[in-house]
Amino acid sequence: MNDVIGTDMYRDSRYIVATYRLRDRENRLAARAEGIAIGLTIGTWTDLPSLRKEQVAAHCGQVQGIRVIDATEAGDVIAEIDIAYPVANLDATFASLLTTVFGKLSMDGEIRLERLSLPEAWERVYPGPKFGVNGVRERYGVFGRPFVMSIFKACAGLTLEELVDQFGEQASGGVDLVKDDEIFFSEAHATAAERVVAYREKARQIAVQTGRETAYAVNLTGPVHLLREKAKRLADLGAGALLFNVVAYGFDVLADLARDPDISVPILAHPAVSGALYGSPNYGIAADIVLGQLMRLAGADMGIFPSMYGSVTLGGEATDRLLAHLRKDSVHRKVLPAPSAGIYPGLVPQLYRDFGIDLILNAGGGIHGHPGGARMGGQAFFDAIAAVQEGVPLQDAAVDKPALAAAIAKWGVRA
Amino acid sequence: MNDVIGTDMYRDSRYIVATYRLRDRENRLAARAEGIAIGLTIGTWTDLPSLRKEQVAAHCGQVQGIRVIDATEAGDVIAEIDIAYPVANLDATFASLLTTVFGKLSMDGEIRLERLSLPEAWERVYPGPKFGVNGVRERYGVFGRPFVMSIFKACAGLTLEELVDQFGEQASGGVDLVKDDEIFFSEAHATAAERVVAYREKARQIAVQTGRETAYAVNLTGPVHLLREKAKRLADLGAGALLFNVVAYGFDVLADLARDPDISVPILAHPAVSGALYGSPNYGIAADIVLGQLMRLAGADMGIFPSMYGSVTLGGEATDRLLAHLRKDSVHRKVLPAPSAGIYPGLVPQLYRDFGIDLILNAGGGIHGHPGGARMGGQAFFDAIAAVQEGVPLQDAAVDKPALAAAIAKWGVRA
Ligand SMILES: [Mg+2]
Ligand SMILES: [Mg+2]
Repeated sequence: MNDVIGTDMYRDSRYIVATYRLRDRENRLAARAEGIAIGLTIGTWTDLPSLRKEQVAAHCGQVQGIRVIDATEAGDVIAEIDIAYPVANLDATFASLLTTVFGKLSMDGEIRLERLSLPEAWERVYPGPKFGVNGVRERYGVFGRPFVMSIFKACAGLTLEELVDQFGEQASGGVDLVKDDEIFFSEAHATAAERVVAYREKARQIAVQTGRETAYAVNLTGPVHLLREKAKRLADLGAGALLFNVVAYGFDVLADLARDPDISVPILAHPAVSGALYGSPNYGIAADIVLGQLMRLAGADMGIFPSMYGSVTLGGEATDRLLAHLRKDSVHRKVLPAPSAGIYPGLVPQLYRDFGIDLILNAGGGIHGHPGGARMGGQAFFDAIAAVQEGVPLQDAAVDKPALAAAIAKWGVRA
Repeated sequence: MNDVIGTDMYRDSRYIVATYRLRDRENRLAARAEGIAIGLTIGTWTDLPSLRKEQVAAHCGQVQGIRVIDATEAGDVIAEIDIAYPVANLDATFASLLTTVFGKLSMDGEIRLERLSLPEAWERVYPGPKFGVNGVRERYGVFGRPFVMSIFKACAGLTLEELVDQFGEQASGGVDLVKDDEIFFSEAHATAAERVVAYREKARQIAVQTGRETAYAVNLTGPVHLLREKAKRLADLGAGALLFNVVAYGFDVLADLARDPDISVPILAHPAVSGALYGSPNYGIAADIVLGQLMRLAGADMGIFPSMYGSVTLGGEATDRLLAHLRKDSVHRKVLPAPSAGIYPGLVPQLYRDFGIDLILNAGGGIHGHPGGARMGGQAFFDAIAAVQEGVPLQDAAVDKPALAAAIAKWGVRA
């Protein structure tokens, strides 16, 4: 795993190493790198009396590497620069981490934060996932197979009764989780607490038939200073998970939730707004840092990201890095990946190959769009899982599985 | 002012209008726009029974405009699309605003959020500045002229005594505020509270000579759930302002601080990390939204942004828009702009022309780099202010103003 996200060759317990991709004149790279290393840490070095040098040395940044990657038509080069920042300059917040490695620097022209290497000791200052893969499996009683998660659809304006019906349709397909749409903030018809209570009741009724109580991932929203109390209340009322728009709120807000021992449910991180950071290849922060590395450090138990099967993907390399961040050996628990967009039952064999079983099959259209409705849509995923587990081609399994057969007829199979 | 940031032609109390710049096939623009308007609000429209249409109409997004701006070599066009989102879909958080208008959409290829138009009624749900320009003037007793702010430099590793010396040197030049470096998180030698107390004492000593008690803008850091208490404590101990890395923390965290009536000092918003959002011309969120519009709505009293005089600027149009956001007539108090980087005493006449007097002259190198030290550096700014106020050219005024003369000798004058 570590191969993909760097050999950590400069891994030293006192430094965080940030790698930037930037454009500059080749003959200015050395001075540029030095300017970053000094300018963003101790401010100045050459002017200092030797006593002061000793005093501030522990806070001084260091240039660890400069590599020219490409030449541009304008006579500039594209280069990667590695800068080591002393952890002594930080506090335990993501705000201090981001401000140190990409605060002022983010405004310095064409530059992108490509990689972060944190010493293990410094990873420990962040909470990490409270549940992680194993904890989430325990919590939902799901072992030896991927999770199936369904997404509420078109909720705006629905009455609580209509919402409960939609929940029930999804839950009766046996899905492990039903998540709110991340854009669902309106409480005109029902508060989050009312939804949690009503869906729980419905889930329990359905569990009598299915033997499986579907969990509800409720969108956690509201003023920051009330979020922890709200999260506890929703958990106490029976929420199965908290859906959280991490980038829109801030990583430290997630960390606050993850650190609170009284918030007793897993957190499902949504990537909303993250494209504003990672979209450009030349600016911003790499997707795997935002949606992989920082999400895990800040405490996401489950992490949604754009799948490689949808219309807009992160690209193979970024996806590999992202997954490595979620799953590598670390002081923190592992995060369950939820690749999203373009997920349908016929893709399950491919998903097994790409991700293994520690995975959330997260489908919106791939469940609601099933010709037999959301119940059959969920069932089709379980049919597909059973087939893959038994080593049976989906087409063969579909012979006596009408839900899977209908899904294959509509969306096909990636064998 | 409103000319610069849009005529608000679609201003309707029920809708927020977002304008995107994107790249697509020209013949796909209409469907793309419709897909955004429906997909990010009610999910689907055509399939709905008419009763449901009635029910969800109030939540449905609307395409307000599609304009082709440019053609690309690849046969695509660059277009602007205006989408109106019902405020009924939001709660009072920035997370809900950003997730609604640029959540999933931020991950949808080459697309940039260029403008946001909020109905006045919806601007009211955000706190806005607690002090604003007038309140900050009252607070610091500064009238009829710009503020002068000096920036702590190279603080890492300094003892409290050394820090107090540096504060004292800056304060003795008469500056209105001294701000922490935004990258100063280390409390190894002194906590924020200890710095506040020690600097206050020093400021009071110096005020005996100068007649002016310099305020200290302390970097507010730490876990989110402790920030409000910490802010109150620092304010009670005598902090003059709170420096806050808003983008690194999240706009809702700022809003929480601004909404708290017990936090009785102005907030100075730092733009750290904002370049990760606005840097690219093709992705992310426009600088004036991030550093102007959202900062004001969320409650910054003073806002730092890259000046048009430094090496990396926002560009004239973005700067004009940003200023318009800080200063336009609105339900909220106005924000004091603090254009930063490249500010020196000889630039003061130009700063008056560009900004008027409701302005913070924020200088780091332009104060510490003064040949006579930081005290003379601050003095030089006041000499320049006095000259401009009296209508005297700086060179003439410098004849009997040694601080200004030395500054001009080093940095020159932009007359
Ligand atoms: Mg959604
Ligand atoms: Mg600074």
